[in-house]
Amino acid sequence: MARAPRREPDETRERARLQVDERRAQLVALGLRLFSERSYDELSIDDIASAAGISKGLLYHYFSSKRDFYAATVRSAAESLLARTDPAGHGPDPEALLAALDQYLQFAEEHASAYVALMRSGVGHDAEVAAIVEDTRARFVARLAGRLGLSEMPPRVRLALRGWVGCVEGSSLDWLARRDLPREDLRDLLAQLLLATLMAVEATPQAAE
Amino acid sequence: MARAPRREPDETRERARLQVDERRAQLVALGLRLFSERSYDELSIDDIASAAGISKGLLYHYFSSKRDFYAATVRSAAESLLARTDPAGHGPDPEALLAALDQYLQFAEEHASAYVALMRSGVGHDAEVAAIVEDTRARFVARLAGRLGLSEMPPRVRLALRGWVGCVEGSSLDWLARRDLPREDLRDLLAQLLLATLMAVEATPQAAE
Repeated sequence: MARAPRREPDETRERARLQVDERRAQLVALGLRLFSERSYDELSIDDIASAAGISKGLLYHYFSSKRDFYAATVRSAAESLLARTDPAGHGPDPEALLAALDQYLQFAEEHASAYVALMRSGVGHDAEVAAIVEDTRARFVARLAGRLGLSEMPPRVRLALRGWVGCVEGSSLDWLARRDLPREDLRDLLAQLLLATLMAVEATPQAAE
Repeated sequence: MARAPRREPDETRERARLQVDERRAQLVALGLRLFSERSYDELSIDDIASAAGISKGLLYHYFSSKRDFYAATVRSAAESLLARTDPAGHGPDPEALLAALDQYLQFAEEHASAYVALMRSGVGHDAEVAAIVEDTRARFVARLAGRLGLSEMPPRVRLALRGWVGCVEGSSLDWLARRDLPREDLRDLLAQLLLATLMAVEATPQAAE
C-alpha cells in the first residue's frame, strides 16, 4: 500500500484526541471536587453535567456511565496520591518517610469524605474501583520494598508491609472520625509502626532451606 | 386500669415473637452461606426466597429489603466472629492471642469471598453495613485494651491498636488472594506485629502535663 504523502489527517486526529483527553481530565478534576463534597449515591449524572456546564449527552460522550466517571476520578486521585507521596532521594531515609506520610495524611484530610467513602465497607461493589484501590496498595508496598532494597520479597515481608498499609488506612479512618491527635503526631506514630514492623519481620529467622 | 387477670395473651404474643426471631435467625444463617458463595449483586431476592423455600412475599415479612437482609447477615457474622475470637482467661496472654488470631483467620478463610467483598472498597455504600464493620473494629480495640489493662486509652494508643486491626485486615486480604504462607505463619506474624505495635507505642514518652 502507498504511504500517505502528507501527515495532516493524522495530525488532525491527534489534535482531536488530545482535546478529548484534556476535556476528560478537566471533568475528572471536577469529579474529584464533587465526590469530595457529596457521596456517590447523592450525586446524579444530572448534577455532574450541570456542574460541568455541559449536557448530559455530552457527558456520556466522555464517560459511559456514572460508575465509569467515578472510577476515572478514583484512578486520578490514586495517581495524584502516589505522586504526592513519592519521596525524593533513594534508600531508606526517615525524613523522606515522614514527608511521604505527611502528604498521605494531608491528602486524606483534604478529601476526607471521599477517602472515608472509598475505604469503608459497603454493598454493591464495583470491581474496577476495588481493583484501583488494591493496585494502589500494591504500589505502596512495591515502593517501600524498593526503598528498603528488597529485590526479592518473601511472602511474610510482603504481608507485613501490606499489613502496615492497612494500618495506615485504619488509623487514618479513626483519626478522620475523631481528630483527637495532631496530624504530625499521627505521622510520627505511623513511621514508628513501620520501623517496628520491619524490626519484627527481621526478628524472626527465616526457615532454613 | 385493671390488670389483666390471665397472662395468656402476653404468652401468645411472646411465643409468636420467638417464632419470628427463630425464623429470622434461620434465614440469616442461610444468608451467611449464600453471601459466602455469591456476591451481593449476583444474589437476587428471588434467589434468596427460592433457597429458603418460601415466597418472596414471606421473605419481605421478615426483612424489608435485600439490603436489610444483607445487613442482618453481616451483623450476625460480626457477632459470630467476635464470639469465636474472644479468648479465654484474663490479662495479656500470648497463647490466647494466638488462639484468637487463629479463629479470625479461619473465619476469613471459611467465608473468603464474603470477607473480601465486605472489606474491599466499592461504590454505593450502605451506612448500616459500614457502621456494623466499624463497630466490630472498635470492639476488637476495646477488647485488646481490656486485656492490656488500659482503662484509659490515650488517642495514640487507640490509633495504634485500630491501626493493627487494619493491619490484620490488610494482610488477610492479601493472604486470601495469594495463599503463599501457611495460616499458622500469618497468625504468628500478626501476633508479633501486635507486640511490636505495643512496644512502639510505649517507646515514645507521653508528653508531660
